[in-house]
Formats: sequence, C-alpha cells, structure tokens
Amino acid sequence: MENFRNESDLLGTLQVPANAYYGVQTQRAIDNFKISGQHLSSYPHFIAALGMVKKAAAKTNYELGMLDEQLYLKIAETCDELVAGKLHGEFPIDMIQGGAGTSVNMNANEVIANRVLEKLGKEKGDYQFCSPNDHINLSQSTNDAYPTSIKIALLNMNIELVEKLKKIVAAFREKGKEFSNVIKMGRTQLQDAVPMTLGQEFEAYAANLEEDISKLNANANLFVEINMGATAIGTGLNAPVGYAELCAKNLAQISGFPIVSAPNLVEATPDTGSYVIYSSAMKRLAVKLSKICNDLRLLSSGPRAGFFEINLPPMQPGSSIMPGKVNPVIPEVVNQVCYKVIGNDLTVTFASEAGQLQLNVMEPVLSHAIMESNIFLGNAIDTLREKCIKGITANKDVCLNMVKNSIGIVTALNPYIGYKNSTEIAKEALETGKSVYDLVLEKGVLSQEKLDEILDPANMLNPHHF
Amino acid sequence: MENFRNESDLLGTLQVPANAYYGVQTQRAIDNFKISGQHLSSYPHFIAALGMVKKAAAKTNYELGMLDEQLYLKIAETCDELVAGKLHGEFPIDMIQGGAGTSVNMNANEVIANRVLEKLGKEKGDYQFCSPNDHINLSQSTNDAYPTSIKIALLNMNIELVEKLKKIVAAFREKGKEFSNVIKMGRTQLQDAVPMTLGQEFEAYAANLEEDISKLNANANLFVEINMGATAIGTGLNAPVGYAELCAKNLAQISGFPIVSAPNLVEATPDTGSYVIYSSAMKRLAVKLSKICNDLRLLSSGPRAGFFEINLPPMQPGSSIMPGKVNPVIPEVVNQVCYKVIGNDLTVTFASEAGQLQLNVMEPVLSHAIMESNIFLGNAIDTLREKCIKGITANKDVCLNMVKNSIGIVTALNPYIGYKNSTEIAKEALETGKSVYDLVLEKGVLSQEKLDEILDPANMLNPHHF
Amino acid sequence: MENFRNESDLLGTLQVPANAYYGVQTQRAIDNFKISGQHLSSYPHFIAALGMVKKAAAKTNYELGMLDEQLYLKIAETCDELVAGKLHGEFPIDMIQGGAGTSVNMNANEVIANRVLEKLGKEKGDYQFCSPNDHINLSQSTNDAYPTSIKIALLNMNIELVEKLKKIVAAFREKGKEFSNVIKMGRTQLQDAVPMTLGQEFEAYAANLEEDISKLNANANLFVEINMGATAIGTGLNAPVGYAELCAKNLAQISGFPIVSAPNLVEATPDTGSYVIYSSAMKRLAVKLSKICNDLRLLSSGPRAGFFEINLPPMQPGSSIMPGKVNPVIPEVVNQVCYKVIGNDLTVTFASEAGQLQLNVMEPVLSHAIMESNIFLGNAIDTLREKCIKGITANKDVCLNMVKNSIGIVTALNPYIGYKNSTEIAKEALETGKSVYDLVLEKGVLSQEKLDEILDPANMLNPHHF
Amino acid sequence: MENFRNESDLLGTLQVPANAYYGVQTQRAIDNFKISGQHLSSYPHFIAALGMVKKAAAKTNYELGMLDEQLYLKIAETCDELVAGKLHGEFPIDMIQGGAGTSVNMNANEVIANRVLEKLGKEKGDYQFCSPNDHINLSQSTNDAYPTSIKIALLNMNIELVEKLKKIVAAFREKGKEFSNVIKMGRTQLQDAVPMTLGQEFEAYAANLEEDISKLNANANLFVEINMGATAIGTGLNAPVGYAELCAKNLAQISGFPIVSAPNLVEATPDTGSYVIYSSAMKRLAVKLSKICNDLRLLSSGPRAGFFEINLPPMQPGSSIMPGKVNPVIPEVVNQVCYKVIGNDLTVTFASEAGQLQLNVMEPVLSHAIMESNIFLGNAIDTLREKCIKGITANKDVCLNMVKNSIGIVTALNPYIGYKNSTEIAKEALETGKSVYDLVLEKGVLSQEKLDEILDPANMLNPHHF
Repeated sequence: MENFRNESDLLGTLQVPANAYYGVQTQRAIDNFKISGQHLSSYPHFIAALGMVKKAAAKTNYELGMLDEQLYLKIAETCDELVAGKLHGEFPIDMIQGGAGTSVNMNANEVIANRVLEKLGKEKGDYQFCSPNDHINLSQSTNDAYPTSIKIALLNMNIELVEKLKKIVAAFREKGKEFSNVIKMGRTQLQDAVPMTLGQEFEAYAANLEEDISKLNANANLFVEINMGATAIGTGLNAPVGYAELCAKNLAQISGFPIVSAPNLVEATPDTGSYVIYSSAMKRLAVKLSKICNDLRLLSSGPRAGFFEINLPPMQPGSSIMPGKVNPVIPEVVNQVCYKVIGNDLTVTFASEAGQLQLNVMEPVLSHAIMESNIFLGNAIDTLREKCIKGITANKDVCLNMVKNSIGIVTALNPYIGYKNSTEIAKEALETGKSVYDLVLEKGVLSQEKLDEILDPANMLNPHHF
Repeated sequence: MENFRNESDLLGTLQVPANAYYGVQTQRAIDNFKISGQHLSSYPHFIAALGMVKKAAAKTNYELGMLDEQLYLKIAETCDELVAGKLHGEFPIDMIQGGAGTSVNMNANEVIANRVLEKLGKEKGDYQFCSPNDHINLSQSTNDAYPTSIKIALLNMNIELVEKLKKIVAAFREKGKEFSNVIKMGRTQLQDAVPMTLGQEFEAYAANLEEDISKLNANANLFVEINMGATAIGTGLNAPVGYAELCAKNLAQISGFPIVSAPNLVEATPDTGSYVIYSSAMKRLAVKLSKICNDLRLLSSGPRAGFFEINLPPMQPGSSIMPGKVNPVIPEVVNQVCYKVIGNDLTVTFASEAGQLQLNVMEPVLSHAIMESNIFLGNAIDTLREKCIKGITANKDVCLNMVKNSIGIVTALNPYIGYKNSTEIAKEALETGKSVYDLVLEKGVLSQEKLDEILDPANMLNPHHF
Repeated sequence: MENFRNESDLLGTLQVPANAYYGVQTQRAIDNFKISGQHLSSYPHFIAALGMVKKAAAKTNYELGMLDEQLYLKIAETCDELVAGKLHGEFPIDMIQGGAGTSVNMNANEVIANRVLEKLGKEKGDYQFCSPNDHINLSQSTNDAYPTSIKIALLNMNIELVEKLKKIVAAFREKGKEFSNVIKMGRTQLQDAVPMTLGQEFEAYAANLEEDISKLNANANLFVEINMGATAIGTGLNAPVGYAELCAKNLAQISGFPIVSAPNLVEATPDTGSYVIYSSAMKRLAVKLSKICNDLRLLSSGPRAGFFEINLPPMQPGSSIMPGKVNPVIPEVVNQVCYKVIGNDLTVTFASEAGQLQLNVMEPVLSHAIMESNIFLGNAIDTLREKCIKGITANKDVCLNMVKNSIGIVTALNPYIGYKNSTEIAKEALETGKSVYDLVLEKGVLSQEKLDEILDPANMLNPHHF
Repeated sequence: MENFRNESDLLGTLQVPANAYYGVQTQRAIDNFKISGQHLSSYPHFIAALGMVKKAAAKTNYELGMLDEQLYLKIAETCDELVAGKLHGEFPIDMIQGGAGTSVNMNANEVIANRVLEKLGKEKGDYQFCSPNDHINLSQSTNDAYPTSIKIALLNMNIELVEKLKKIVAAFREKGKEFSNVIKMGRTQLQDAVPMTLGQEFEAYAANLEEDISKLNANANLFVEINMGATAIGTGLNAPVGYAELCAKNLAQISGFPIVSAPNLVEATPDTGSYVIYSSAMKRLAVKLSKICNDLRLLSSGPRAGFFEINLPPMQPGSSIMPGKVNPVIPEVVNQVCYKVIGNDLTVTFASEAGQLQLNVMEPVLSHAIMESNIFLGNAIDTLREKCIKGITANKDVCLNMVKNSIGIVTALNPYIGYKNSTEIAKEALETGKSVYDLVLEKGVLSQEKLDEILDPANMLNPHHF
C-alpha cells in the first residue's frame, strides 16, 4: 500500500505511515499502549530534553571516535530541531507505557534517524546509513538516556514553576504592605486569640511560600546527577571508557545545567530517590497553598453570616439558583489542584517502591505524575495570583470592630495582674457580655490611663518593654 | 540454669523461661522482632480469636478421627482459657513481625500445647505427648489459621465499633430534635446561602453517620469467609477430606458468626481484598467524622469574631497564655484520629499490594493497622459523644439575626420575579447595605403582604406549593 | 464585532462567540479555569448524564405545572441531543474548576437554552423566551443537578468497567483450564512451598478478580440515591412539593437505573460518601490487578536466570541495547495504571474530607479523579486481556523439574513421620543436595511403595483421605 | 480525701493525686483524651526537649529581668531533671490530644512548678510562689514552646536514626567487598540483562542508602529555626523586647544545636512545612529500604525453584507445616515498617494541610506520626543489619552458571556485529536452546579468540576501550 512503508524488528515486519519520521518500534508502542490518551507530544519540555540528551550522546561518540563527523553533525542538527519544537507531532506515544521508557527512547531514536536519513537524501527506513540503534542510541541504553531526559525536562519545568511561585510571593507581599494598618483579631483553633494586622497575615503567606523557592530548587538540583554511560545496568557495557564523564560535560554545555555523572552508575540506574523527594517538595508546596486557600475562603466568608474580613474579586456568578451569590471559586480550584498533587505524590511513592534489582520499570508513570503536578501547580499559582490575590480588598471596619468587642485582648493584662485574675475577668466578660475594658475599670484593678495604654490594639502587635 | 528450660527446633537449641507456656519459636520471635513495642498481649480480641480457631481445628480433627478424645478435650479446655483472657501474658510477640504470622500461630500452638501438657501432668516442653506442630497445628498451616484468627478478631472488633457509632448517631439525632426550632443561615462554599434549622443540620450528621453502620457491617461480613483447610497454599495438602467445610461449621458454632469456607482456597489464601475494603470503609467513616468535626469547630468559632452559632462544652482551659480561652479540643482530637485512620488505610493498601504468588506475607502490619484504626476510632467516637455532642448548646439569637440580615433570602423571590430581577436586588443590597425586604418594597415589585409571606424564614425550610 | 454576541450577568457584559450555544457563564469559566487542559467535552458519559438530568427536571416541572408543554418538549428534544453526543463541542470547560460545579451546570443550562431558542426561531441569547436559570434550571440548583449528573455518568461508566472485568475474568479462567495439568511448585514468601498446578494459579486469579464484579456493582449502586429537589442546601427552597420524588421517578425512567430520592436531602447534598467508597472499590481492584501483574512478571522472569514458568506473548523489542530481550511490557503498564488509581483515590479522600457545612465544593476534582481511574482501569484491563493473558503459554517441563527437585514435598510426610522427623530430612536434603525421596529410602522410614504414593506430586494437589 | 489535693482552673476545682507533680490541667487532659494508649512518658526525647525549652525560657526571662535569680535557678535545676529522665512518670498524657499541645505544655509547666515548690519547701499546688502559667510559662505560649520542643526532640531523634543508617551502609559496603568476585546476571524488568558482580549490587545498596544520610540531616536541619518569643500568634504579645533572639541563643547553648529565631514569627507559628519535608525524607528512606528488602527476598528465593543467588541467615523455622522451610523474615518485617512509615507520612500530610489561620492545631498527631516513624525505622534498620545483612552468603556457582547460560551476553557483540545481527543470534538461541557462543562460532562471524575475549563475563563489568 502506497501510504505505508514496511519496517521490521525482532518481532517481524510492520506497516508504518510512509510520511512518519517515527518507525516500527514507535508504531508497536502506539498499538500496545492505549491507556491515558495523554501523549508525549503534549510535553514539549520532555521532547526537547530528549533532543539535548541525544545530541550530547552523539557529540560524545564523535569526540571519542565512535561516530564520523558528517553523521554527528546531521544528528546534532536534528536534535536542535527537537529542542526547537519542530517535530512534536512525531511523538504520539501514550505517557503511561510499559517497557521502562524503551518506547520513548526508540521513538526519539527513530525520529532522529529518519530525519537524518532525509537530510542525507536517503529513504526513510533505510537504516544502514543511519540506524536508530547503532547510531542514534550508540553507547546508550534506554536505562540511561530515558531517565536523563526526564531529569533535564524536570530541571526546565522546575524553573517555570519557581518563576510563578516568585510572582505570587511578590503579590502576597504587596498585599501585606497594603494591609499593614488593618488591625484585626488573630485566631487560633478558630477561636478569637489576640490582635494582629491583616498585613502581618498576608506577609506571612508571602514568607511561607517563599521558603519553597529554595526548597524546590534544592531538590530539583538532585536531577543534575545523571547516569549516561551506565548503559543497561550501570556497568557501562558497550560504552567506551571515559564516555560517562564526557557525556555529562557535553550535556552540561548543551542544557545549561551543571550536569555531573553519578559517582556509582550501578546505583544511579535504578534509583528514583530524586523523584521521590522532588515530588514531596511539590507536595509540601501544595499543602501550604491549600492551607492558604482555606484561609482565604474563611476570611472572605459571609457576607453577613461569616468573617467577612476580606473580599475576593468576584470572578463569576456563584449560583444557578441564589441570585447575587459570589463564591471564592479561584481558591477553590487551587485547593483541588493541591489534592491532585498530593495524589500524584502517592503514585510516585508506589512507582518508586516498585523498582526491582537493576531497574525501576515504573518510571513512565512516575515522570508523568510529576510532570502533571508541575503543570497543574503552575497553572493554579498563576490563576490564584492574577484572578484572586491581586484584587483582594479589606473590610477595615469589620476587622476593627471584632477587635474592640473581643475578650482575647485580656491577654495583654497578664503581665500586670497575672493569669489567674485575667481569667476571672475573661470569664465574666463571656458570661455577662460586658467588655473587658469596662470590667477592669469596674473592678478598679488598673487606672484608666494604664488600661488605655495596655488595651490599645496597636500596642499588641509586637513584643514590649516591661 | 534453673530458671530456664531448653527447647530445640530446626535451628537448634534455645533457652526458654522455665515458667513460660510459650516455647522455642515464640522465644525466637521475641528476639527477632523488636520493632513497634506493641505486643499481641494488648490485643485481647486477637488472642481470643486464636483460641476459637484452634478449638475449631481440634474439634474438627477429633470428629474426623485425627485426634483422640482426651487430647481434644484438654485442647478445647485450654482454648476456652484463651478466649476467657487467662493467658494473655503469654503472647509477648511484637505486632509487626516477619514470617507471615508464623510466630503468632506458633505462639498460640506452643502456649496451648504446654498448658495441655500441664493438665496432663507432663513437663513443659515434653512435646511427645502434645506437640505444637503435630497436635495443636494438626491439619493446619499458619497460612490458614492466622488469617482466620484475624478475621474472627475483626468481626468482634467491628461489633464494638458499630455499637459506638450507633450511640453517637443517637446523640446527634437527639440534638437534631432539640434544635429543631433554631433557624439559621445555611452556607455553601462558606458563603451565606439560604435558611435552614440547626436541627436539620444535626439530624443530617446523624443520617450521614448512620449510613456507615450498614456499610461497616456489610464489609466486615466479608470476613466470615475463611480458608481453614487450605493449609500451606490452598491445596489442602495434609488436611483430611471434608476438613475445610467441617471446620468452618465448627468455627461458626464456636464464634457465633455465620462462618463459611471460601469456595476457592487457593484464591482465598493470599487474598487480602476483604481487609482492603473494610479498611476503606473505616476510612470513609473517618472522612465523614473529620468533616463533621471541622463543621463543629466552624460553627462554634468565636466567641466574638466567629460564627458563634453553637457552644461546645468547655473541657479544659484553652491556652497557657490567653485567659478565658476555651478551645474545641474534642473535635480536634477526633480530626487527628481520622488522619491516623487514613494513614493506616494507606499502610493497608501497600501491604495488600505486596502479596506475592500463593501468600501475602505482609498480613501482620496489615492487621495491626486495621486493629489500630478500629480501636482509635472507637475511642474517638465515644469521646466525641460523651465530652462534646451531648453538651452542645445553641445561640439561638445569633443564628436568627444572621438570617434576618442576610441577602441569601432573596433566593425565595426567584419564582415570583425571576433570577435576573432577584440578582439586581441582591446586588443593590450588598452595595448599599440595605435589607432585601426594604429594597423590594421600595421598588414596589411585590405587595408587603406577599413579601412577608415569602421572606418568612420559616417558610423557606421546605419545598412549597406554588 | 460581528463574530461575537454580548451577554450579561451579575458581573456585567461579556463577549461570547456568536455561534456558540454556550453563553456568558460558560465563557467566564473558560477564562477563569485554565488548569488541567482536560475538558468536559472529552467525557461523553458526563455530558449525556447532564442531558438526562435536565430532561428529567423539565419533565417534572411540566408535570407539576411549572413549565408549559411546548417549552418542555423542546427542552426534552435538546436533552436527547446531548445524550446522543451531538453537542459535545459546546462543553469546553476544564474538568477541574472552582464553584462546586456551577460552571458545568450553567454550561448545560446555557447550551440547552440556546439550542431551544434556535428551535423556537429566536436569537441566541434572547433569554426572555427560554432562560438558562428560570427555565432550564427551574426547581434546581447546581447543588442537586451537578452531583446527580455525576452519579448517572458513573453508573454508566461502571457498567463499562464491569464488562471489561468480566471479560478478563473469563480469559484467566480459560487459562486456568488450559493449564490444569501443569504441575509446579507453589511458593510462599518467595520460598518453595508445596506443589500445585498452574491451572489452579490462573483459576485463582479469575476467582480473585471475579469477586470485584459484585463489589464494584454494589458500591456503584449507592449512586442511584440522588438529591434532585434539594435545590441549594437540601431544604428544597423554590422546588414545588412532590418535586424530589417525581423527578427521581422520571430520571429512573430516562436513565434506566433504579433511581430514588435520598431520604434526607440536607444530608445528601454535601455527602460524598458514595464517591469515597466507590473509589475505594476501584482501588481494591487496582491492588489486586497490581499483585497479579507482579506475579505474571515473576513467573515469566528469565529466560535463563529466572522462574521461567510461563511465557508472555512478546509485544515489542524490549531493549534499545540488549538484542533479543523481550520484556513484560503489558503487565508493567497495568501496574502503573494501578498506582495512578491508588493516587486518585487519595485525591478523592482529600476532596471528600474538605466538604464544609451544607456543600462539598471539591466535587469537580473528586469526580475527575474517579472518572480518570475508571477510564484508565478499563483501558488497562482490556490491554492486559488482549495483549497478554490470551497469549500466555506454559513451560511445562521447567515447572515439573522444579517440583521433582524440591524439598518442599517433604511436607507430605508429616502425617506419616511427624513434623520433627520431616524437619531433619529436609535439613539434610538442603545441606547435602540429596533428594527427599532418596533420603527417606536411605533411612528406611517408609517403604518405597508408600513413598511413591505420598510423594507423587499429583497426590498433593488436594486434601486426602488418611 | 487524703490521697488527693484540690486544684482549680477556669473550669472549676478538680482532684489531683496528692503525690503527683502534675496538676489540674494535666488531670483534665488525662480524663479528656483516652485515645491511643500511647503516652508522652514513652517518648523520653520529647520530655527532655521540654526540659531544655523551659530552661532556655527561664534563663531568658532571668536575663531580661522578668524572673528573680532564686526561682530561675530552681527552675533550671528541675529542667535538668527532666532532661536526665527523672520525672518521666509524671507525663501520662495521651500522645494524640486536642488543644494544639496545650496539655503537654501545661503538663511540663505544672510538673516543673510543683517540683520547684517542693525544692522551696512549699506545698504542691501552692502556686502563688511558683505558678505554672505566670512563672514557668512566662513570656511563652503553647504555640511557641510546644513546637519548639518537638523540634528539639526530632533533632535528637534524627541523630539516632542517622547513626543506625550509617551502620547499615557500612554493613552493605562490607558485603559489597566480600562479593566483589561473584559474577552474576544483572536483571532489568525481571528479565536477564547483562553480567555484573554481586559486589556491585551490594555496593549499590550501600551507595543508595548513604545518600539519605545527608538528605535526612539537611531536612532535620530545618528544625533549628524556632519561634520562641512568638507567644500566641507570632506577634510576641507579652514577650519582652529581645526575648526571641536571646531565647534562641540560650536554647542553642543548652541543646547543642545551632538554634535560631525564625525571621517571621507570624509565619513560623502555624507553619508545619519542616515536618512535612522531614517526614517525606523518612518516606524516601522507607521507599529505598523496601525496594532493597524486596530485592533481598528475590535474590534469596528458592532454594530449588527460585533465584537462589544468596542465602539470608536463618532466624527461625519458617513454617508451622512445611518442615525445613526458612523464610526471609527480617526483610519482611522491614518491608512492613516501611509501609507504616509511608502511612504515617500521609497522616502528616493531612495534619499539615489542616492548619488554619494563625495555628496548626493538629501538631500532636503530626509529631506522633513522625516520632513513631523515626523509632520504627531505627529499630527496623538495626534489625536488618544485625540479623540479616551481616550473615548473608553467596551461592557463587549458581550465580556463575546463570551467566554462562544466558542470552543477555549477546549484548556485548553489538559493537562488533551490530544490533540487528545480534538480535538474530539472540532469537535463535532462545528458540533452539543453543548457547550464544556456539551460535556465533557456527555462523563464523567472529574468530573464536575474539569471541572468547568479548564474551568473557569479567570483561563485561565495566566500560571498554574499542
């Protein structure tokens, strides 16, 4: 049939679309894995990383005399096309596959080989001139090239996530400044505690998330340690002496990351510890974001039967039945993304624990879960910043009135009249509905002047001289 | 040494405390597994279950002519002592062990054998007259006797948990009745929605938890299917023909549960599906309880800067620094137990997935996690009922005022003036601070009489005739 | 601009594509939620369910005199188009959104309204003749229509999953028959145990998975209880008397499921317990499938340095570097799907626990996680059956030789010479490398004739007469 | 009654055992929280940490002129007694409590106060001379003293865990050396791959676990940042100026850790991010340990129907029915501990996400889960080292024979004859049962001399010169 070409492998001959750069092994993977409907082609960072890794491998092979110059240059040129996003459509494999990534590695090998053949004026599939296995995959195995590509992809994806995180930290910080004069009640265990400012609350959110910038970066940094040169199981069989170190150096130059060769390649090949802890770091960020979104929803509860301290910008009518209702839809969607990230972290945990002997065959789902978390989190953070944080306003009077009516301000009396006496006043205030201020005066335990000073909320926002 | 006796097994000779009913294999397990510090001796339902299972096995062996009457009767008598809790101190094995429960099974076999020897006037360890393996374990393997004992234990533990659940459902229901006239704002997405009664809210908690009574029972009911007679791998090697069915019948009679033999013993022996789904059912209960406790903490938030619709009974001073503060400590501890139960469910999931071929060797941690969840949940539910639910009071005026001030009641106008007109009134109310009632009158869209009828909160609690 | 039309809502006016059936609120949701890239349009069962629910609601409104006949008939006709899959492109909303499903509900309301307007010869957006809120959403709220639609969708999706499960059970059973004469060693704790047949092993897989057919169905059956008529919070505000029951009856007729109205709508509205336990049931299935795939990979390990008892059909070359290597890629991909399902179950747990007061706002991610698990599991099961189970072959000689050489057959001697004597023989066999058979003869403890009978593996596959 | 004394607090008067150093608030906690049966008294590191924190607080108060010298000295002396383990019996509170740790903090305050009173010659309970709140808790709140104590405890517990980890790394490394000449087949995806040494495999385990030493330490190091001086919500109300920094300095000196004050105390007070990531680091270790134990069980499978490459030291008879069976009970128990650690990590995740506004009230269960994981892991690691790793022996001949018979060695031919030709030889070997060596000779593609060199397993263990 004219629209197909025949290719063959260990299992026999198979038809491949005539125009496809990919070959027989990619075709088998397409047929074998119809699972998630989410394809490699939607993960541009991953395809670009494959391009960089294959280029570094080719360069190393060339420099070690394993590959001739012309072929090397054509391969390098094609790898650059992968990085530039020109061949994404040629990666139709499901992100969740068996085979420990062999299909992905061979997909890249085949696409590069056929594109090189084209550049050389040869027919697609005429692999004697440029073979997916013998040339593109030279001195490599799926077991080194595939995890290395995942790591390069994640290094770049982490940069994007961290950029978004930095921006939302700045947005929270700006609100912290804007609200620095809004005095309100702090709450512990959902019970009225002591006064603070709304600015302190938002600045704390900024500080809380800011810590995760270095945390994400520190854990992503584990990905710079790669296992190129390990080949099948880390012993380096079929890789020339010196390959591992030189390839790491070349990949560092190509990718821009400080890539190094793992000190023990037999250890590095099945190890998925870096994924586990990086996923955990995203989980930590998700836990924090979810807590903050819970807070935002609490603080904006109401308008008449809730805390109503802040207003979130209205994004859409809130109800199909309740007119005028506006809901905190943006924090809500962020919460949900956080639950997805936490679920994905469990998938990573299971996948990592399932490693056996010299390999972890579950890397496809492991990397898919991490990449999904990265993308969802990034989208959620941008959405939260743009469509929520930036537009938040404060209900200053509501906040202040709650402080004035509060019993919690009795705490400030401890240093003057002791915990036990303060307790009695608090109890009486609660039972009678009287204010702490009036009760103290009534009892005559402190002068009005002293009391005015102690109970001024503005004096409660920081440590004191006694 | 005089305080020890020597016993021997496959690995050689070992000293066992002279007075101990347990023997060499128990001693090895004591030495091998110093892990959790939580011992079998603290799980009376488990030990009792071992007693019932061993009695059923002995009875079956006797009835099938494998065991003589005198020995059977002594064994049965000793098993009754286990059920009665007379020998708990003889089970010092860590709950988390390797060996798929062999240590627990042998612990029971040894204790029973030595107690029988004592009754027969023989020395402990003189196993020619009554052997842990040849007599007590006759026609059995750890792989049938151990999981069967776990199942019997869980059947009894489920009964206790369900009893506690029934009592708290009744406590919520009683509050539902008590609060049936307390009108309050319902809330969706933490935003004011439409009116309801506090009684409806508490009755909903009762109804919500009530569903889990049948759910727990239905899933516990899977435990009645046992694999006695399977011996090592389900093929029944060394068990006499008819043993499986007769033993199930005997165990049914001894335990009081409708025990049956699994239809496929090769399947039943490694299968842990019943544990997974029962643990999931406890997780479901934990998720519900946690949500309810979150609600109770929200509804009692305040006293001045929160919802303050209800008061939880004060159980202890809430703060080491804030006088008069009282915290919702009981719902808080229940939340925490729920997180533990959810964590344990994950342990069960991992342990179950780790089964291999003809056995799941992870049953000890699996059963430990389930039993821990059962006990913690039971304690938490009783604590919640006694120390919190029963003493809850309502702040009726607070509740009513929030309804009167609310915008959400505009919803009731929809059928009369349409969603779009209602939306405009809601918007104006929010922006001006005016009441919905006044605005409608002002605009003259409905007569005051009609409006009074529509906006009476008491008319909003149920479906209507239009 | 000519390609857009203007629509307005609570927040003001917005441009909507002129040809779109969806309207302003859908447009806001498109703009607000750019999260997962996975859209409602890819979930045909969900859209069909919305069609059924909206049709049932319209029919009920008509029958109760709330909607005139002409409009009802047009709405019903349009709902049938949704069910038939004719308008899927009009549902471009991200599956993960805030707002508790309001966007999805309004998407359906808007699409139906505009399509009805078209049928009535009116302009899109001319909602005075047919309004998304006042007519399509009449007597409803997102809080009843949305979860009801999810439940109908899941009931249908469960049917598909169960069909696939039934087919794979049959495939395992067929292999069980095919391998009924292949004698092999059973293994417990990865150590040689006692003989069995490969047929017993595969029949056990069939029996193991078969149990989950009823388990999935029983838990899916919880979805037949719906809360139509609850409106905003379960009190039924704005729904006419009798609506809940009649709507359930109509939906039963339209959907073909035995739909009933929940006995307590205030309870039913925020309750997500049915999702939790249904997700748990899928998790249980995933745990079992994963264990079975682990087994298949173990049993086919080799070819020279593993168990090599069975051969999985080769699906693709296994390695980019190791020629001739064929890997168990199909079980591997199934394992990975199982980890994803377990991760999704955790997402469901978190989302369910986050319900607050009268609603659970996390239903979008909750339903997305369950639907994803359902689809992935279904694909994985079909793949496993077609591309693996059906083609498995046995290495009969390998299996038999391992039995002949085994020490485990010594177990069969217990009833004749006791556990202790058997232990000594086993020990000696292990240390000397001699066979159990020869050692027994050597020691003269049993006659050769008796021994031949006892140690015939075929005699070890079932219980015995003694 | 003579054996009790009366004490009173906000809620009234209560009887406390006359001899108890603890007081009324501890007594209320005992009564309120009967949950887990696991008490503070079993966590010596926690009690010692409370002693250090209270001492640092007293020293700071003294140095800032808030406390007189005599009282300070007595308090310091008593705190030293706590550190020395002299008063553990006075901490009978359940580890899982509500109240965000107030009960634990007050337990320490009360025990110290009463012990000081005793030293002063006063009656227990005569708090005018030394009050739990006004003196021991001076300038503190539960919300700073409690989490700070947890962090000091975890810093010490981490040291112990890391010590154990170092020892097992050394044990694996020693085996790596011992087995450096044992050539065996490496396996990927459970299929025969290419040769390696057993030494490389064990050295890889050492290297794999060794990475977690720095990982645990780096994450534990987050605990050095404390929030003393925050008091109730981080604003430092009632703490004197300079308190936070000076207290951190004092605690550094007392504890020996480089303790610093958090830069933002409002942020630090509710933040539980350090717990989340430290728990994740333990989870990572658990995942690795579990994978290694899975490997050990695989490699020692057999003896006749498994891999049988190594022997684990026999620790106990393996079966109650199968004579001579020895099971890998130690790796099995370690697997189970790992599942528990992973479950606890989920509990931590839930507890952390549940923080609200200015506090995370779930810290008790969060710290309990982390401490339990730490203790169980430490016990498991020691058990694994002592009772398993140290006694492992290799079956050298078994290992070598599998290499000689393998097809995987064909991989070494790639560089000489190409992937495609190698594939054909591999295929023929698999189908005919012939050896790769014979087939190559038969086909005459390489000289025998060259072939001998290439196929020598010893030449396959490292990269090559080509």
